[in-house]
Amino acid sequence: MSVTVADVEAARRTIAGQVLRTPMLPAPKLSALTGADVHVKYENLQVTNSFKDRGALNKLASLSADARERGVIAMSAGNHAQAVAYHAARLGVPATIVMPVTTPFVKVQATEAHGAEIVLDGETVAEAQVRAETIARARGLTFVHPYDDPLVIAGQGTIALEMLEDVPDLDTLVIPIGGGGLIAGSAIAARAQKPDIEIVGVEAALYPSFWNALTGEHRPLGGATLAEGIAVKNVGVLTLPIVRALVSEIILVDEAHLERAVNAYLTLQKTMAEGAGAAGLAAMLVKPDKFRDRKVGLILCGGNIDPRILASVMVRELEREDRIVSFRLTIPDRPGVLGQIATRLGQLGANILEVEHRRLFLDVPAKGAKLDVTVETRDQMHGEEIFQALEAEGYAPAWIDTATTME
Amino acid sequence: MSVTVADVEAARRTIAGQVLRTPMLPAPKLSALTGADVHVKYENLQVTNSFKDRGALNKLASLSADARERGVIAMSAGNHAQAVAYHAARLGVPATIVMPVTTPFVKVQATEAHGAEIVLDGETVAEAQVRAETIARARGLTFVHPYDDPLVIAGQGTIALEMLEDVPDLDTLVIPIGGGGLIAGSAIAARAQKPDIEIVGVEAALYPSFWNALTGEHRPLGGATLAEGIAVKNVGVLTLPIVRALVSEIILVDEAHLERAVNAYLTLQKTMAEGAGAAGLAAMLVKPDKFRDRKVGLILCGGNIDPRILASVMVRELEREDRIVSFRLTIPDRPGVLGQIATRLGQLGANILEVEHRRLFLDVPAKGAKLDVTVETRDQMHGEEIFQALEAEGYAPAWIDTATTME
Repeated sequence: MSVTVADVEAARRTIAGQVLRTPMLPAPKLSALTGADVHVKYENLQVTNSFKDRGALNKLASLSADARERGVIAMSAGNHAQAVAYHAARLGVPATIVMPVTTPFVKVQATEAHGAEIVLDGETVAEAQVRAETIARARGLTFVHPYDDPLVIAGQGTIALEMLEDVPDLDTLVIPIGGGGLIAGSAIAARAQKPDIEIVGVEAALYPSFWNALTGEHRPLGGATLAEGIAVKNVGVLTLPIVRALVSEIILVDEAHLERAVNAYLTLQKTMAEGAGAAGLAAMLVKPDKFRDRKVGLILCGGNIDPRILASVMVRELEREDRIVSFRLTIPDRPGVLGQIATRLGQLGANILEVEHRRLFLDVPAKGAKLDVTVETRDQMHGEEIFQALEAEGYAPAWIDTATTME
Repeated sequence: MSVTVADVEAARRTIAGQVLRTPMLPAPKLSALTGADVHVKYENLQVTNSFKDRGALNKLASLSADARERGVIAMSAGNHAQAVAYHAARLGVPATIVMPVTTPFVKVQATEAHGAEIVLDGETVAEAQVRAETIARARGLTFVHPYDDPLVIAGQGTIALEMLEDVPDLDTLVIPIGGGGLIAGSAIAARAQKPDIEIVGVEAALYPSFWNALTGEHRPLGGATLAEGIAVKNVGVLTLPIVRALVSEIILVDEAHLERAVNAYLTLQKTMAEGAGAAGLAAMLVKPDKFRDRKVGLILCGGNIDPRILASVMVRELEREDRIVSFRLTIPDRPGVLGQIATRLGQLGANILEVEHRRLFLDVPAKGAKLDVTVETRDQMHGEEIFQALEAEGYAPAWIDTATTME
């Protein structure tokens, strides 16, 4: 294999003191949720809030004085861009980052804030990649690959060394796979320390690139995923053989489980995971039997999620739990009725979030109207109680499925 | 004083291995935000997600076999309730928790889940307190006070020992004050280690109980605060003299700064703070000059915030930053116009979140209408561009201040 545990140990010495030795902590509430003994490595607490700091720095630190002076280039719309920009700036190395023109402005801005030169080019990642390679050749820049580079893979592997140092009796690591750098480095390091540890990979069901490569299937790749950090259509030339040799199983996670996992990290563990960062937990929720009673290490590999998306994930979860519910009521269209209903809802302990009054429906008398109310309840049973009370009082309530405008 | 550093050191030995030695980490993005060198102690990662585990356990561990058998009682609607319930269950001590009848159901449920007997009684905290004392006497239970107990104060003080062990050159600690247990214990421990360290206290501006006690003012106490964990109307008999002796200044923080601080912890530091947990950071935002270039230790003392409230805080912040904006347009009321506007907004890169069509306003011709659109923008400048484009096309846009129904 292209990377050895000695490379990972060398990377650890190289990056020591320059990236955070992140906490590795027991997560009792995630253990209760999954039935396993779960420990979390908080890579979302790195300066650029993902594990990418490690591989990027290990690569940058390896450059000759001459190469440092010419500078580096990377192609990324995400965490790798910020990691390269941040550590290049720290080391005084000029950095150019090529991003697709569709990159959200906040990500452009976050990368620019670290002092990198940003080139917006290409409709797709593939087009941006071509552009980056052209610039690299023309200007003699060193290309920092997001995963298919032995130094990057070795850098990411330092995570597993730290995890096993802190919790030596882990028996399973569950690791997200995008291009495969994180899992390849971690698998090499972990297996060298502990030959019988099981390494499980996780891909977004919409991007099963390693799954396809390992199984020979041709599942379609593409679509909008909450886990855009692992939405990679290609497998790495260096990472695929390592994954093939050391990873026992790949679990595909759908969007609903990714959402649940992001929400669980936030509400139970009080920490912010992006979709890709929560993929390991999502896999445990998809296949709970596989992990029951195991001692599992999860890498919360990134925390860069858009606040509006996160707010939406939280509100949708409250709807799923029926802590936010909507009813459509049929009411006589005369003054005072809304006041009566609002008062009644208050008595029932329901907190009104939204009210919409609709006169134009045809299935009520001309003097009638529909009233859509969205309320916050204590729990599902409380929602039922409110429904029954409104029914008993003749408002003919009907459940409505969408509760908020946030979705 | 009623508590010494020896008591805190004894507490540390007592609770070792039974509560988490939480991470203490540099927070470079909060440093950039505040102009200070900020380090954060993550007490929100404790099992019950607040520092209350420490004092509760130190008290419980001190009980005689006989007292353990009879059991304990506490009065709390919040973090203290969960901490007492959790550690009592661990130690096999029966626990009764008295909560006001107004306590949100999720908090009742979370406490009940730890196996405590819950008594819902009293409209206010004061009434619940009376009830708890009555039960304690009748059933011979040990009362576990949330702050006014030397063992509880000593337990909370262990936080400062750990902070200074990890970052010995801190020059300032900024600590939230509810009943004063956390700041009293921490001040005793920190000053004993480092006599010249400055201890700054923080209260919610709506609950300036220590402020009033120290200054002789009579500011009003009360109101709905995001920091309900420090909304305490009384000062402790034991804690007040310690605060008077060791705390250099109290900073009062308003609701807007508490919201900003909760949001900053989440979006910059990727961690979940409740209002009280973010109060220290809020104080730094209120008085940036005081802390500039200082080496500051913040205690993120709790992470138990309602997900709907947190979602609302995040969305409100996006509105403040003009990343979510609303316009009211005047349009001719004929088919196709909405399609034209939606298409145009798409071309301008605005992501439409909400549309409301209003025909009943009198300041437009009978054949006209108003259209309220809420869009997500890249930033403030982008919002201006969209506004100007709509103006140039004759839609007479006007800014609207409230953007969502989440508030």
